[in-house]
Amino acid sequence: MAALRTPDFDAYPTQHIVARAEPDTHGVRVVWDDGAESRYHALWLRENSPDPDTTHPTTRETTLRIVDVPENLCVVDAAVAEGGDLIVHWSDGSAPGHFDRGWLRCHTHGLPDSNRYELPEVSPWDASIRANLPRFDGSSFPQDRTAFSGWLEAVHGYGFGILHSLPAAADTIDAVAEAIGPVRESNFGRLFEVRSKAEADSNAYTSLALPAHTDLATREYQPGLQMLFCIANGADGGESLLTDGFAVAGHLQANDPEVYEVLTRTNVEFKNIAQDTDYRWETPMIVAGDDGNPVEIRWTDWLRAPLRAAPETVDTFYSALRTADALMNDPAFQIELKLEPGELLCFDNRRVLHGRRAFEMRTGERWLRGCYIEREELHSRLRMLDRERRGAEMDA
Amino acid sequence: MAALRTPDFDAYPTQHIVARAEPDTHGVRVVWDDGAESRYHALWLRENSPDPDTTHPTTRETTLRIVDVPENLCVVDAAVAEGGDLIVHWSDGSAPGHFDRGWLRCHTHGLPDSNRYELPEVSPWDASIRANLPRFDGSSFPQDRTAFSGWLEAVHGYGFGILHSLPAAADTIDAVAEAIGPVRESNFGRLFEVRSKAEADSNAYTSLALPAHTDLATREYQPGLQMLFCIANGADGGESLLTDGFAVAGHLQANDPEVYEVLTRTNVEFKNIAQDTDYRWETPMIVAGDDGNPVEIRWTDWLRAPLRAAPETVDTFYSALRTADALMNDPAFQIELKLEPGELLCFDNRRVLHGRRAFEMRTGERWLRGCYIEREELHSRLRMLDRERRGAEMDA
Repeated sequence: MAALRTPDFDAYPTQHIVARAEPDTHGVRVVWDDGAESRYHALWLRENSPDPDTTHPTTRETTLRIVDVPENLCVVDAAVAEGGDLIVHWSDGSAPGHFDRGWLRCHTHGLPDSNRYELPEVSPWDASIRANLPRFDGSSFPQDRTAFSGWLEAVHGYGFGILHSLPAAADTIDAVAEAIGPVRESNFGRLFEVRSKAEADSNAYTSLALPAHTDLATREYQPGLQMLFCIANGADGGESLLTDGFAVAGHLQANDPEVYEVLTRTNVEFKNIAQDTDYRWETPMIVAGDDGNPVEIRWTDWLRAPLRAAPETVDTFYSALRTADALMNDPAFQIELKLEPGELLCFDNRRVLHGRRAFEMRTGERWLRGCYIEREELHSRLRMLDRERRGAEMDA
Repeated sequence: MAALRTPDFDAYPTQHIVARAEPDTHGVRVVWDDGAESRYHALWLRENSPDPDTTHPTTRETTLRIVDVPENLCVVDAAVAEGGDLIVHWSDGSAPGHFDRGWLRCHTHGLPDSNRYELPEVSPWDASIRANLPRFDGSSFPQDRTAFSGWLEAVHGYGFGILHSLPAAADTIDAVAEAIGPVRESNFGRLFEVRSKAEADSNAYTSLALPAHTDLATREYQPGLQMLFCIANGADGGESLLTDGFAVAGHLQANDPEVYEVLTRTNVEFKNIAQDTDYRWETPMIVAGDDGNPVEIRWTDWLRAPLRAAPETVDTFYSALRTADALMNDPAFQIELKLEPGELLCFDNRRVLHGRRAFEMRTGERWLRGCYIEREELHSRLRMLDRERRGAEMDA
């Protein structure tokens, strides 16, 4: 079996071996040495057979088309190989399947998958998190894997995390992003410079205060993650603000369900019209999932298009907006931090709102450099760091 | 008023003038010269006032925070300006609002907005579309605006469109993409080369046939649009295949509702595990919207992870998959085309499945260059082309 598997990709260590195996109604019934029972469907086994004609040895993707296999394929015999793997003989005479016991145990419906990395739990927070900010030492990034994975876990769990002590150089953010995955470019560029400029094409590029908001609310899918890296922050003011939109939405859901209802049901258009672009997207400002809980926040006051509704509906909407927006900017839900040069803040832009206090241009330089990256890159990197950790444990 | 507006951004030509205006319960009641009546909410008017303290003159974004305006703001007087605009006097003593009659008419609930560009209708198609393929002449791209907008309208409406007679050079696709908007980079690069390579990290980079599929099904959001540009296609085989996934899903919904139900309800994990990445996403293969109709297709046979379900559920799922996959690859729903050098195919990757026939490497070179781009860039570009068209009409 070893030749068919790439150990660094899928090591399935298990303490268990197959004790007995026999054909049953849908495929195979297996009894393990600890008495646990598993049942596997014949076509399922056939599709996931590790042989090179089923799973491409280089791409590791499935090349067999299960829809090309006879629908009535069944298992005519099942046996236990030396070492406790499973051997399956098919009714269509194709070569017997040899299933690694570790892989099989991990892919059993109803049994825990000890090989699977679960992303950290999503934890809503309020202002009390300021006593225990998710800050991590970036001075040995990315070699310091504990800081790297701790930071990414915070970004997933709390929706934000800070790396400090990075080099306060213009290209640092690029290196940090690339250590995770590809950047999501926008019409503001691959990287964007948050400093006041004369011909500002966004309020972000003025010295104005910005209330709590999400970025690129005008897009079909708001960028999943935003990074803001501080190169200089010497001007008076310019503190960064963060609010957990899920915490506020959850608070409304529990305490002010009518407001929650209005904001999850009213379609609001966001628009951003410039010289060469015209982005618009219409959606509720709080998107509720099938279970009614908030799954996405879209909140950019200055990009809301005029609501198209009767005055009575407008009245209800403005009232709900007023209540919710006050909470999004309420010190009880919000933290304030003044980024130092060399600090990088990463946050989930579909969940955590960010803002800033106004700053006074003449008192010093303020220069943040930002970029977007998708959440799947965070997930993939967390899984890779976990794979690396397990590999090191197996080597030890 | 002219000084407050940027005509190329928002020209609101109208034949109508405000005939009468008076305060009412929620704000203002307006009677137009054609007898139409409109009602506007006081806070809505206040928030959308065109004065420079409300709408930033450079960014054109709203700087007034409507939540900072007293909730009980009301209209104490309303008047008609010379030329038929509306003047509003507020109860809080702030400077009167002056609303352009064209803007006001276009933003009236219940009256048509003659200024608004509507994206073309989404039209499902089957194999009969081959008699009338949405092909456009790219020889003067992007200067030929009729071909440019025709092509993009097809990509929106049919989910695909072809530009032909482009220069068969390696950098052509980049120029075409940039004429629309920023490229979405992935772990396969900003641009990717579809040609057979020795160390393939995806089935796409072999000479194998590829059944109808969507790309990057392992991501939270599959890329909205894919472009495939043909530089060489001299090998035997390698024909491109396209299927409208919405048409197939709609067919199932109407004719085989149980299969539709299984595929819209069963969560399937897609995974792509490589040396440095581990992408996974779990979702139904057909996503149904609130009205039950299909809104997204995710279909990549070789990236489906082993289903985690009881054998009975596996059985039902495989049966539904078999039915639907056969339709996705059915000549009645599918078109086949052999891209010529200089042809660029763009399709909606969340709707239209693509595939290819196997090709014979020794018989010639096959080289497609691809990239992804988000749908909002398509929408924005269509609106810009429309803005340009209207501008030209106004100048004429």
